[in-house]
Amino acid sequence: MLKTPAAPVDVANTTASVYRADHQKDVVNRLRRIEGQVRGLVEMIQSGRPCEDVALQMSAARKAMDKAFYRMMACSVIEAVYDAGNEAQAIAEVEKSARLLERFG
Amino acid sequence: MLKTPAAPVDVANTTASVYRADHQKDVVNRLRRIEGQVRGLVEMIQSGRPCEDVALQMSAARKAMDKAFYRMMACSVIEAVYDAGNEAQAIAEVEKSARLLERFG
Repeated sequence: MLKTPAAPVDVANTTASVYRADHQKDVVNRLRRIEGQVRGLVEMIQSGRPCEDVALQMSAARKAMDKAFYRMMACSVIEAVYDAGNEAQAIAEVEKSARLLERFG
Repeated sequence: MLKTPAAPVDVANTTASVYRADHQKDVVNRLRRIEGQVRGLVEMIQSGRPCEDVALQMSAARKAMDKAFYRMMACSVIEAVYDAGNEAQAIAEVEKSARLLERFG
């Protein structure tokens, strides 16, 4: 997925920024849904719903949070590679992302 | 933590319901903080904060969600034991909670 030298710079930048905007929106939408799920959990607990129902919904929210995290990391790696001026810089960026995944994944 | 036969029933019930109310409030407070963290994540992404900052905050929210889940499960086990009429019922309730932990933990 490295920027090919033949591609016109403007087109590449447009692609990268469209990609960024789309995926930022995707991660934000995921987080907004999670926010709603967490609010729903409070209502479930307060209305005395059985533990199993709450556990199921909590598990869904945790999985959604994990997915949002990995989605964000994937976008960030792709962006870093898009933005890299050369291959060495791209490799350094991917290394950095791998360290973040190791630390927070 | 089984209810001792010597304890007056009313006192035991009061203890259980106070315990329940306190811990329900604790889990609800944890969830409200998580809701705020998730909202904060949206703002961080929208204001273009670096990936590392977002990853750190996302990791904090995921850990807080895990803690809320285990806290809720611990409360639920203790409540089930409090509420059990006899030892067999208490054991059955603990078994049920262990299965929930296996499934969603």
